[in-house]
Amino acid sequence: MGANKQMNLGFLFQISGVHYGGWRYPSAQPHRATDIQYYAEIVRTAERGKLDFCFLADSIAAYEGSADQQDRSKDALMAAEPKRLLEPFTLLAALAMVTEHIGLVTTATTTYNEPYTMARLFASLDHITNGRAGWNVVTSANLAEAHNFGRDGHVEHGDRYARAEEFINVVFKLWDSIEDGAYLRDKLAGRYGLSEKIHFINHIGEHFKVRGPLNVPRPPQGHPVIVQAGSSHPGKELAARTAEVVFTAQQTLADGKAFYSDVKGRMAKYGRSSENLKVLPGVVVYVAETESEAKAKYETVSNLVPPDFGLFMLSDLLGEIDLKQFDIDGPLPEDLPEAKGSQSRREVIINLARRENLTIRQLYQRVSGASGHRSIWGTPKQIADQFEQWVYEEAADGFNILPPYLPESMNDFVNFVVPELQRRGIFRTEYEGSTLRDHLGLARPKNSVAKPS
Amino acid sequence: MGANKQMNLGFLFQISGVHYGGWRYPSAQPHRATDIQYYAEIVRTAERGKLDFCFLADSIAAYEGSADQQDRSKDALMAAEPKRLLEPFTLLAALAMVTEHIGLVTTATTTYNEPYTMARLFASLDHITNGRAGWNVVTSANLAEAHNFGRDGHVEHGDRYARAEEFINVVFKLWDSIEDGAYLRDKLAGRYGLSEKIHFINHIGEHFKVRGPLNVPRPPQGHPVIVQAGSSHPGKELAARTAEVVFTAQQTLADGKAFYSDVKGRMAKYGRSSENLKVLPGVVVYVAETESEAKAKYETVSNLVPPDFGLFMLSDLLGEIDLKQFDIDGPLPEDLPEAKGSQSRREVIINLARRENLTIRQLYQRVSGASGHRSIWGTPKQIADQFEQWVYEEAADGFNILPPYLPESMNDFVNFVVPELQRRGIFRTEYEGSTLRDHLGLARPKNSVAKPS
Repeated sequence: MGANKQMNLGFLFQISGVHYGGWRYPSAQPHRATDIQYYAEIVRTAERGKLDFCFLADSIAAYEGSADQQDRSKDALMAAEPKRLLEPFTLLAALAMVTEHIGLVTTATTTYNEPYTMARLFASLDHITNGRAGWNVVTSANLAEAHNFGRDGHVEHGDRYARAEEFINVVFKLWDSIEDGAYLRDKLAGRYGLSEKIHFINHIGEHFKVRGPLNVPRPPQGHPVIVQAGSSHPGKELAARTAEVVFTAQQTLADGKAFYSDVKGRMAKYGRSSENLKVLPGVVVYVAETESEAKAKYETVSNLVPPDFGLFMLSDLLGEIDLKQFDIDGPLPEDLPEAKGSQSRREVIINLARRENLTIRQLYQRVSGASGHRSIWGTPKQIADQFEQWVYEEAADGFNILPPYLPESMNDFVNFVVPELQRRGIFRTEYEGSTLRDHLGLARPKNSVAKPS
Repeated sequence: MGANKQMNLGFLFQISGVHYGGWRYPSAQPHRATDIQYYAEIVRTAERGKLDFCFLADSIAAYEGSADQQDRSKDALMAAEPKRLLEPFTLLAALAMVTEHIGLVTTATTTYNEPYTMARLFASLDHITNGRAGWNVVTSANLAEAHNFGRDGHVEHGDRYARAEEFINVVFKLWDSIEDGAYLRDKLAGRYGLSEKIHFINHIGEHFKVRGPLNVPRPPQGHPVIVQAGSSHPGKELAARTAEVVFTAQQTLADGKAFYSDVKGRMAKYGRSSENLKVLPGVVVYVAETESEAKAKYETVSNLVPPDFGLFMLSDLLGEIDLKQFDIDGPLPEDLPEAKGSQSRREVIINLARRENLTIRQLYQRVSGASGHRSIWGTPKQIADQFEQWVYEEAADGFNILPPYLPESMNDFVNFVVPELQRRGIFRTEYEGSTLRDHLGLARPKNSVAKPS
């Protein structure tokens, strides 16, 4: 089945892994959380596995929620490793120097940044990586971020998306403002640049007024690869219009297929072909030579989540409901209190609990490992079978791997799963191109600002 | 003379050098202007010379001035290499991975950035470099920057400095918000952090409202080294109050001494001791085995500045006056038209022309090489004599070297001047510490946010 349809694989790099028990795993190295060599070792492992890219989630706050919420939950918070302790642009630029092929993608918000600054950072990162940069565009729904940027509350959903659309539009124009070949550098003639290839963009919109040009030449990839993760209606529309990679949380094959065809089906009206968007569901992988050994790894890390933190985190995912009133070893009650925050994330969690008959403890252990993403365990063959099925049945173009504990589960993935995928001819054995666009099979965009010649 | 008083040496890294003829120099490599390996080679040369730091000037615009000004002068602008084509944080983070000791300093403006974002970038850079980061604080007087950030005009001088003071204050508090030792990472006890060592800063001021904490632990240096270059009254006050290194343009020993004692004399009222501020005048150095050979290098690069560009640039330095009305091979007229922009820079240029009886052509050739800084040429002994005299007579604690053309003049400096300084015992032969603070002899600041224990 699925003969030779190639898949794309990225991985989410969170310090000691995405599982909240990850930092306590026996082989974890949480004391190296600000040691750049630690990051270098892990990203080089991923490159040895020929992965398409390393991806950083981001947030511009140390902890989420209001000061009150943080204060009330501080004991729980102090039992977890922060999701990040270094800033992503500096981190990825450093990693560029110790890798050659792997793509380097980071999240950046359009709500608390300026388009000129973001366009410049990504363009520069794309030069420094020789065309390996990608931007996961987010709009920030986090109250703690608002409180670090002079606001009392976060920006409304609709306003954030309107700003995001204009922001991306300005960034695209800035990336194109110094055309390919604008700099001649003719020493003898004393001619460095060609003014006809360098453009003011003169953008005047509802949110931004930006003259340009950018002070970085057009990036090697034309535009760094655009990634999105929104699963709301405007999020899917923005993805269909502008994204080249979509991250998504899908628990079942059926849900995956529905999402895949939904998002790809929205592209035609923007004049885009569906192969120019790669849908990559997140998946947490536990792999070992036997299924029971793989399952034991999952159980080991799950048992390392302190119950107080587990309940706090599950309550947060379900919309700030108090779970301490229920039996931790009983099921999630039918009549849960009203939720605050994301409804779609809450639904995914509730459906998972019902489908698998999980107790509250089992549920927090499961979601502790995955932030709402799917967790699977098994032999290399079992994992590869699932990957192959999802791609063959058009639920995915590949996966965003979420290593539960690092560095060990990245090593496991590269040593066990990648060779099995390669043996089946559904994943590369060598990088064929040099840019992230090459790895993903995406074309270099045309320049939107250049005058037709 | 000056027996064993040690000096500090940084260098300004501008693509093909600071001289506007630099990119046309025979050995220049302007086609490598976005090649990270080019930057790596030059910074490693400086590290071979045991220099204290590499410094990047910055501006958030491709060209200066209004769109009209840019349009009128576009032929002139196209004859020059832009001062920068990569973004400084990504560039320095990349360079961190190919160097071990040299400090990495960049300019960043307080006018078009947010304190949380800046605090985070510098803290992260300080971790990635293991304590080698520095921040040259500027306030932006550049119209082109304003036009990239939604403004019609630039912010008034007084307002910029008020914002800058508050900005620095917020950044300091954010750097201190996660104390040294706040992260225990006790795997067995399941205790990652100590909430009593992690602080909301709850800053509410005239310009900023920032809750904190920062999402990066306290930097290895406590605070990255603070650099300033303002020579106006509020600039000098800000330097006396907060700076640890001051860059300055001083053409003569007498001016250098006056500036040195002026700035250091302002420190006592802020409770600071004068040795905690290093005054480093900029100097463009042409060195060779003979004086005539050194002078020939200066003349070669000076002759590579196209006259149109030279006049444009000189006119800009003198406050946008039209120089084409005067004889290019005659003196600068006594009754120059009124200036726009910086008066202090204009005065330095006029005084230089008068003192050395320069024609307009000679003047633009001279300032083409130095943006208002001093240029000197000679044998290693002659250069070292001048350096030693300035330090001995308290006009300088060292120098910010401005290589006129790269990579060659960096090699010359390291091969010719550094050994002569080392032979005299006035410059290190090996790095003794590991951080930029160590190189500069500056103490690690105390934490301003931590509760006294």
